[in-house]
Amino acid sequence: MKIKIQDALILTMDEQQLYVQGDLLIENDRIIQVGGQAPEGWEADETVSLKGRLIMPGLVNTHGHTPMSLLRGYADDLALQSWLQDHIWPAEAKYTEEDVRYGSLLSIVEMLKGGTTTFVDMYDHTDVIAAAVEEAGIRGCLTRGVIGLCSEEERAAKLANAVRFAKEWHGKADGRITTMLSPHAPYTCPPDYIELFVQASIELNLPIHTHMSETIAEVEQNVRDYGVRPVEHLRRLGVFDRPCLLAHAVHLTDEEIQILKEYDVRVSHNPGSNLKLASGIARVPDLLRAGVKVSLGTDSSSSNNNLDMFEEIRLVALLHKGVTYDPTVVPALTALKMGTIDGAISIWLDEVGLLRPGYKADLIAIDIDQPHMIPHSDLVSHIVYSASQKDVTDAWVNGKRLVKDGACTTLDEERIRYEAARCFARING
Amino acid sequence: MKIKIQDALILTMDEQQLYVQGDLLIENDRIIQVGGQAPEGWEADETVSLKGRLIMPGLVNTHGHTPMSLLRGYADDLALQSWLQDHIWPAEAKYTEEDVRYGSLLSIVEMLKGGTTTFVDMYDHTDVIAAAVEEAGIRGCLTRGVIGLCSEEERAAKLANAVRFAKEWHGKADGRITTMLSPHAPYTCPPDYIELFVQASIELNLPIHTHMSETIAEVEQNVRDYGVRPVEHLRRLGVFDRPCLLAHAVHLTDEEIQILKEYDVRVSHNPGSNLKLASGIARVPDLLRAGVKVSLGTDSSSSNNNLDMFEEIRLVALLHKGVTYDPTVVPALTALKMGTIDGAISIWLDEVGLLRPGYKADLIAIDIDQPHMIPHSDLVSHIVYSASQKDVTDAWVNGKRLVKDGACTTLDEERIRYEAARCFARING
Repeated sequence: MKIKIQDALILTMDEQQLYVQGDLLIENDRIIQVGGQAPEGWEADETVSLKGRLIMPGLVNTHGHTPMSLLRGYADDLALQSWLQDHIWPAEAKYTEEDVRYGSLLSIVEMLKGGTTTFVDMYDHTDVIAAAVEEAGIRGCLTRGVIGLCSEEERAAKLANAVRFAKEWHGKADGRITTMLSPHAPYTCPPDYIELFVQASIELNLPIHTHMSETIAEVEQNVRDYGVRPVEHLRRLGVFDRPCLLAHAVHLTDEEIQILKEYDVRVSHNPGSNLKLASGIARVPDLLRAGVKVSLGTDSSSSNNNLDMFEEIRLVALLHKGVTYDPTVVPALTALKMGTIDGAISIWLDEVGLLRPGYKADLIAIDIDQPHMIPHSDLVSHIVYSASQKDVTDAWVNGKRLVKDGACTTLDEERIRYEAARCFARING
Repeated sequence: MKIKIQDALILTMDEQQLYVQGDLLIENDRIIQVGGQAPEGWEADETVSLKGRLIMPGLVNTHGHTPMSLLRGYADDLALQSWLQDHIWPAEAKYTEEDVRYGSLLSIVEMLKGGTTTFVDMYDHTDVIAAAVEEAGIRGCLTRGVIGLCSEEERAAKLANAVRFAKEWHGKADGRITTMLSPHAPYTCPPDYIELFVQASIELNLPIHTHMSETIAEVEQNVRDYGVRPVEHLRRLGVFDRPCLLAHAVHLTDEEIQILKEYDVRVSHNPGSNLKLASGIARVPDLLRAGVKVSLGTDSSSSNNNLDMFEEIRLVALLHKGVTYDPTVVPALTALKMGTIDGAISIWLDEVGLLRPGYKADLIAIDIDQPHMIPHSDLVSHIVYSASQKDVTDAWVNGKRLVKDGACTTLDEERIRYEAARCFARING
């Protein structure tokens, strides 16, 4: 299948040439040319005109829990531990596989229509999520998040399930699905259990993804329980000897930032969720200055409460300026890289996140002929400081057009909305 | 003209009954009934079905500078003083009345389509802005913002112009236009000049609107120049003896907060702009606790960079939780009140901001049948934490439908976008 996209302004996110004029050519799942004219003799099977639009790499959401969209607005304005233990976990205990399916699909519809073409998902019933990813056509880095606050037998079963899932699905769905291994967090998994995940990560040659240092209480508990802060704790357990992506990492000392840099640990910054749960504000300018790779995640819809990556991109650009009194930190282009190419790098995808020949054809179109995008003085600025997920008109993943003029092509949105509402009614009933 | 709006869920923002089922009835410029059935014999001239939508009061943006939309993305990621003095003021010096007209109209199109039905505007060439408001059908509280860093003659002329404008336009456009008097800020107006504005405010019986304590540097300069911080400075000048709306008020001591409460001074909190310009984070939870009336403003598109009031509503709900580590501060409903009824109260409009019989028919419709609004567990939560201006489908002001299914009915959006881009090209050329 050969596709020619024409008449759009192209934002490559490739710093060597950020904006390009001309056509973008796709063959099967890959970009073969960015800008200029199609070569002599090259005939497109499909030509798409995107006048008045900008095309750019699809957004990469590096932390979330898609089935939790059913719990959007379910328990707001509460502290993290009470929110989790008194509300979210009891509700999740009622989840069936059908709830996981429709919660995940609801999130995937929102993400695709909103310009996210790759997402990280840490949850349970991951086979159901993987099947949803396969069906939807989106790219997913999926992991079975395991809470170890249970019996030895349950722990063993959960680990076995996580390993089985990771092995079975890694590389599936034309390579769109990759996997990781996820002990949920240092405060929900005993040390020896985390070590078993490290072992499995070595055996399967897969990265580790875990929550860490989201709240001050959690850091303090770690010190009480293990005598050290979470970074040193995970370092000693060998977690950082593996490729590792941490979600949150809000509360860090200078020394901890240095360790993350030294071990090339990647951080998924979730500013919306951290604010909403009052967890605090991560030291992003310091992380960037130290050279730590930082990407962006929405976290789940029940702590955000949407999956709009443009909001996270805007928040990371705005928030740290206000906190540090320095308007030059996290400039617009840095924020947009965190939501695209740095997100891809953070989950070890080396053919996603840029519009460049040879890369996977994961791209989105944005309507720039709207009042909040005028004048076209600086479109990176407009995307970061003015756009929202509702400005996305089209999305391709692996060369397949999954959103066309604002509508999903692979999923039945109306049915998914209906079923998700029905599932929530049962959980809440 | 009698209008019946049916099939929508009604969010009144009236705490006595927040949600109502049934019809909303409008006669001419006023709401006459909220919920239930139309009375026997009452015949609508127009019936509008809004199935799958929620209707609520239009949003009130209590601080901005509409013509500055031409400078969206023009000079990002700079400190306030450099941004103003090296970039914005020189560009604004090139503004013609045509630039003011199209900049203002571009902002008004964005605001109307995005659910803002009332806005405060502080700028120059205010007759042009008032004419745009008259034409658009939106509600505007307009004020000629005066910078007094000039000769005595110029100062006198500017004051006279501000007074003439305020007198001439107050109550015009079927009452949609109200006015205020605006010395720009304590650091841009000498004390005796501010006193002349206080005098004029008494004579015209109009409120005062000014910037105050946006940055630490400005507070320090005030102490250097006048021996006191800005609140005491303005108090001594008699500004707070008048009805007064302050923009920003980021840097306040406990004593200053008490003075604002004592004098019933209202604060327009502009979280997006304060973050972007690295001015700091206002003490909103403390202001609310003290009983100060706080509303929300976008500030201009060149420090925001859009006019999406949903973003400011979300930011005020999120930001202060993260900063104070308290997830219970600024709950969703409080934030939404700040963007609606508290905004109206803050600019002394007593018939706007609620859906209540007798109030002006200023209302908006939101599409709630979308992935990021499902399930319908808590729609106030969804509007605050998940919605954006692009979710607005319809808007009425004074009983007139100004946005219908996402399109402006009184303004030619395409032409305004074209002319605004042309104006910017000249300014930038």
